[in-house]
Amino acid sequence: MNEREIAKIVRAVLDERKGGKMTLAAANSLIEKVRQEAARMGLSVVVAVADASGRPVSVQSMDGAYIASFDIALNKSFTSASLKMSTKKLGVLSQPGESLYGIQFTNGGKIVIFGGGETLEVDGRIVGAIGVSGGSADEDTHLAAYGKECFERR
Amino acid sequence: MNEREIAKIVRAVLDERKGGKMTLAAANSLIEKVRQEAARMGLSVVVAVADASGRPVSVQSMDGAYIASFDIALNKSFTSASLKMSTKKLGVLSQPGESLYGIQFTNGGKIVIFGGGETLEVDGRIVGAIGVSGGSADEDTHLAAYGKECFERR
Amino acid sequence: MNEREIAKIVRAVLDERKGGKMTLAAANSLIEKVRQEAARMGLSVVVAVADASGRPVSVQSMDGAYIASFDIALNKSFTSASLKMSTKKLGVLSQPGESLYGIQFTNGGKIVIFGGGETLEVDGRIVGAIGVSGGSADEDTHLAAYGKECFERR
Amino acid sequence: MNEREIAKIVRAVLDERKGGKMTLAAANSLIEKVRQEAARMGLSVVVAVADASGRPVSVQSMDGAYIASFDIALNKSFTSASLKMSTKKLGVLSQPGESLYGIQFTNGGKIVIFGGGETLEVDGRIVGAIGVSGGSADEDTHLAAYGKECFERR
Repeated sequence: MNEREIAKIVRAVLDERKGGKMTLAAANSLIEKVRQEAARMGLSVVVAVADASGRPVSVQSMDGAYIASFDIALNKSFTSASLKMSTKKLGVLSQPGESLYGIQFTNGGKIVIFGGGETLEVDGRIVGAIGVSGGSADEDTHLAAYGKECFERR
Repeated sequence: MNEREIAKIVRAVLDERKGGKMTLAAANSLIEKVRQEAARMGLSVVVAVADASGRPVSVQSMDGAYIASFDIALNKSFTSASLKMSTKKLGVLSQPGESLYGIQFTNGGKIVIFGGGETLEVDGRIVGAIGVSGGSADEDTHLAAYGKECFERR
Repeated sequence: MNEREIAKIVRAVLDERKGGKMTLAAANSLIEKVRQEAARMGLSVVVAVADASGRPVSVQSMDGAYIASFDIALNKSFTSASLKMSTKKLGVLSQPGESLYGIQFTNGGKIVIFGGGETLEVDGRIVGAIGVSGGSADEDTHLAAYGKECFERR
Repeated sequence: MNEREIAKIVRAVLDERKGGKMTLAAANSLIEKVRQEAARMGLSVVVAVADASGRPVSVQSMDGAYIASFDIALNKSFTSASLKMSTKKLGVLSQPGESLYGIQFTNGGKIVIFGGGETLEVDGRIVGAIGVSGGSADEDTHLAAYGKECFERR
C-alpha cells in the first residue's frame, strides 16, 4: 500500500466522521437494500443515488425495468438533492394553482414532481438523495422512503 | 413423450424467439395496415414502430400529414415501449392531481401523454410499440389500437 | 370510392405532372431499392427520405443496423435538403480551414458533414433528399448516390 | 415431464448459448473488476455498462471522480453499443480529413470520439458495451479494454 492509497483511506474515515460525503460504497450498499425490497414486492426498478451536489454516484437498473425509468430515477435524485425535499412534497407544491406550479420547466427537464425521490440526511444535514422509478408512484414513493430510512438509521 | 413431440416443442420455442424481435418486415407490414385504415377514415397520419428497447424501426409519413406528427408518432412509440403501457393510459395517470402528473417532463421531451401509442406483444411479452399521430386524439388512439390488434392476432 | 378520395388522387397526379412533391409511395419505393443494394453488399443500413422542406417522409432501419444510424440517416437527409448539396461535398467545405468550417454546429446537431446524403431532383428542381447510414462513409456515399440515380432516372 | 417444463429447459439452454442479455448482476460484477484495476492505478473513474440497445444498465462513480465523467462514461457506452466499435477506433475515423469527421455532432451529443468505450461480446455477438472516464485517454482506453477482456473470458 502506497502513500496515496493510505491518504485516501484516512480522508474517507474523516469524511465518515464528519457525517460525510456520499461514497460509492454507501450508495451501492443502499441501492442493494432497495433492490431487495423491490424484488420482495415483485418489482423491477431503477435506483439512483446522488451526492449533496445532485451529482449521480450510482445508478442501477434491475433486469426488466422500464427504459424510461433510468432518466426518471436519475432526475428524482437530482430533484431531491437540488431542492432539498422529497419529490412527493414537491408534487403537491407544483400542482396547477399551487405556489411552485411551473417549477418542472425550470431546470432543463431535470425536475420530477411525483413521488420516488428523497433526501438522505446525516445528523440533519443533507448528504445526498435517492431516486426510485419502476413501480407505481405509490410504490416508488414507498421504496424511496424505505431507502431513506435504511440510510439514516445506519 | 417421443422424440418427434419434443422436437416440436423445441421448434415452437425457437419460433417464439425469432418472433421476439421486431423486424423491419413486420414493422412495414403493420404500418401498411394502419395506413390503409387511416386512408379509409380519410386521415393522413404518421405511423412509427419501435423495438422493445424503444429504438425506431420504421417511421412513415402519409402524404399531407402534419409536420409535427413525425416527432409525436416517434415519441409515442418510445413512450409505450419505455413505460410498457398505452399513452392513453399514461394520459389518465399524468393529469394534474394524478399520481404521475409531471412525467411528461422527465425524459427530454420524449414522453407523450395522450392516446395513439400502444405496446406490441407476442405471447404476453412486449416486442415493440406503435405510435400514430395525425388525427384527433380519439382517431390516433383508435388507429394505434387497431395496429396492436392486427399485430397480435398474426 | 368517395369524393375526398378521388380529389386526393387527382391532386397526386397534378403534383406528379409538376415534377412533384415527395410522396410516401415514391419514398418507400426508393428505400426499397437502396435496401436491396445494401443487402447485395452485405450491409444493414438505415435509409431516410425527406421532402424539399427537409421534413422526413419515411425512415427505415434494416434488421441489425447500428442504433446510431437512425439519427445519422435522418440528419443526412435533412442536411442535403436544407443546404441543397450532398453531405460529401459539405464534408469538404467544412474541414478546418475551409470556408464552411463550423457549419456542423449551427443547426442544433442536425448537420452531417460526411458522405451518405444526396438531394433528389426532378427536372433540375430539388424535391427531397436521401440519407443513408450503416456502412463505411464510402459505402454510405455509394448507396445515397445509387438512390439518387434510381430516383432521378425514373 | 410435461410440455411446459420441456419448453422451460429449452429456453434456459438457449439463453445460456446466446450468453444472454446484459444483466445487472453481470454489469455490476464487471464494474467491480474495472474499479479494482482503476484503484490499483491510483485513479478515480466512472464506469458505465449498457445493454446491446445502448440503454444503461449500471453506472458507478468512484469517490473523487470528475463530475463530467458521468456523462462521458455513459455516452462512451452508448457510442460503442450504437456503432458497434470501440471509441478509440471511432476516434481515428473522425479526425479532421478522415471519413467520419463530424460524426460527433450527429446524435444529440451522445457520440464520444476518444478512447474508453468498448463493445462487450459473447460468441462474436455484441451484448452490450462499457464506457470508462476519469483518467487520461490512454488510461480510460486501457481500463475499457481490460473490462472487455474480463467480460469476454468469463
